[in-house]
Amino acid sequence: MTDLFLLGAGAFSPIEGFQGSKEVWSVARDFRLNSGLLWSIPLLLLAGEEAQAWKEGSPVLLLDEESRPVGVLHLEEKFSLSKPEYAELIFRTRDDKHPGVGWLYGAGDVALAGKVSVFPGWRPHAYDGYSSIPEETRKEIRQRGWSRVAGFQTRNPIHRAHEYVLKVALEVSDGILIHPLVGETKSDDIPADVRLRCYEALIRNYFVPERTLLALYPTWMRYAGPREAIFHALVRKNYGCSHFIVGRDHAGVGKYYGPFEAQEIFRQFPPEELGIEPIFFDQVFFCRVCGGMASNKTCAHGAHARVELSGTEVRAMLQKGILPPPEFSRAEVAQILVDSMKAPQNGSPQPSKRS
Amino acid sequence: MTDLFLLGAGAFSPIEGFQGSKEVWSVARDFRLNSGLLWSIPLLLLAGEEAQAWKEGSPVLLLDEESRPVGVLHLEEKFSLSKPEYAELIFRTRDDKHPGVGWLYGAGDVALAGKVSVFPGWRPHAYDGYSSIPEETRKEIRQRGWSRVAGFQTRNPIHRAHEYVLKVALEVSDGILIHPLVGETKSDDIPADVRLRCYEALIRNYFVPERTLLALYPTWMRYAGPREAIFHALVRKNYGCSHFIVGRDHAGVGKYYGPFEAQEIFRQFPPEELGIEPIFFDQVFFCRVCGGMASNKTCAHGAHARVELSGTEVRAMLQKGILPPPEFSRAEVAQILVDSMKAPQNGSPQPSKRS
Repeated sequence: MTDLFLLGAGAFSPIEGFQGSKEVWSVARDFRLNSGLLWSIPLLLLAGEEAQAWKEGSPVLLLDEESRPVGVLHLEEKFSLSKPEYAELIFRTRDDKHPGVGWLYGAGDVALAGKVSVFPGWRPHAYDGYSSIPEETRKEIRQRGWSRVAGFQTRNPIHRAHEYVLKVALEVSDGILIHPLVGETKSDDIPADVRLRCYEALIRNYFVPERTLLALYPTWMRYAGPREAIFHALVRKNYGCSHFIVGRDHAGVGKYYGPFEAQEIFRQFPPEELGIEPIFFDQVFFCRVCGGMASNKTCAHGAHARVELSGTEVRAMLQKGILPPPEFSRAEVAQILVDSMKAPQNGSPQPSKRS
Repeated sequence: MTDLFLLGAGAFSPIEGFQGSKEVWSVARDFRLNSGLLWSIPLLLLAGEEAQAWKEGSPVLLLDEESRPVGVLHLEEKFSLSKPEYAELIFRTRDDKHPGVGWLYGAGDVALAGKVSVFPGWRPHAYDGYSSIPEETRKEIRQRGWSRVAGFQTRNPIHRAHEYVLKVALEVSDGILIHPLVGETKSDDIPADVRLRCYEALIRNYFVPERTLLALYPTWMRYAGPREAIFHALVRKNYGCSHFIVGRDHAGVGKYYGPFEAQEIFRQFPPEELGIEPIFFDQVFFCRVCGGMASNKTCAHGAHARVELSGTEVRAMLQKGILPPPEFSRAEVAQILVDSMKAPQNGSPQPSKRS
């Protein structure tokens, strides 16, 4: 239902509703809306057998996961979708072990299309003090007088490598939008409220707050790799960004995409069609010889000089209460992660969460 | 005479000769060539009383500082220049303590204009292995397959702050052109051959050589601040750069220009007229709290956390044989500077210099 919220908020502009069969296949095959504009991942609403009773031309009440009414779909078209063909085009695989494909196969078989109306005041995955509305973020950017703004997609705590990427982007911009995905993520991801405290600590201790904006992107990961990189960029354009950071294997999962495919795909489209400029990064790490953060582009000292830890290694350290080395993670951030893992899994305090 | 060489080599394209009175004043007043194209500092040839004998329409043989013939001026116009008015427009001051104004007042009173022919093979301030010809540098850039190339103007050894600026620019580009000015500089500047050895050591030890190109820009500093920043950028476009790094007080001297005037001036001209995109940097330093290089844009820890040394302090350390701290300068670079200061001032070996 986060798609509904974002449709209503204009995050997927110029798309105003769940897409019909013609546009879904046009996006899937040619990266084009019916209008000819660029788009990369269709907005699909898949329902089960109950949808057989709903009539084209009628309104359908939409409920959230807790069965609260959140909006109305003005049903224009019902159609069935060839899921394997769709999966092949969007995810480049039909393998249901891919989480995006798994979601697709597990969803209902009836696709519903039409414009949507969202009930006012409903904000899924809301946290006090942080906006998830594109218009609000754009207004804040305008008020700060920024014209070059780099957007950063994240669903993880920000470690030194991410901090480096953000700071490089900031050096060549007026400001940065740290824009965490706070919708449904994988079950082993760090909860959004913990991540928010990490972001706050990092900004407070290691950034210039006037140059940094933290806002929310309440959505779910498709893990569609290259296509999702384009999708993430187009959405961040709607949130007011002029630039968008694309790292290695952006929005990838497992070995489904090559490490630079999510960067290469941008070259297929002329800059004026994208309307937002990607900033690409290679592998980033702390290099002991450089004595600082670097990437494959700026450092040739090789792996033996690098402080690199796998996600599994970091998780194991944090769970044991050990802070990763400062070359990998700021102590202020690592401490929040250690504390959050000590807290009881249920009943852990989330004072600022509203829904 | 380096202007002659660069004119012949196409570094000042589309300008093909020393400019006539109409174009000189058009550039000085309106930043425009007679064709309407953007330019910021006129190319002037000022001669003394001997020029009275030369006739418009005739060729004039041009000699270098050692009286060797280096080219021919096809004299089209002789005119006298109101130096105070010119100084005010170009340097924003009539003060002859300003080195650019001092040069102007000290030069002859007869301005000579016309296209030039340069005798082949003459390369002022040449060092083996390094090109100063725009066409050669462009060819090298093409062969490396770079499309985003950031140019870096320097007349000093590269310390950590410059290295940071270069590496940030490199992270968002395909490659960088380190383009030292090797013409006449101030007498207290480090000699070009010593600087070249510093650049080589830095690239070898701290850069990815395939991403770094070192070539020469044999010219003299005007110290015209904002106007010279534009001039430096337009010239680097001719050397194949898509981007140009502009730091604090670029091409400034003393207190004649504000620290960001050389950046602000770029906003007067639309990007398509410039044809090269500036990358601006604020003050850069090592911050002990960040544990790395940073700038006013990315670090708010304040002056007490910074490792900053004045040029005078660094010079004093080097002259005593003391290496500045590694947060300020790479040891490999500092050692070359210390050794060069130990060497006898005259007769110091300059094996690779050709002219």
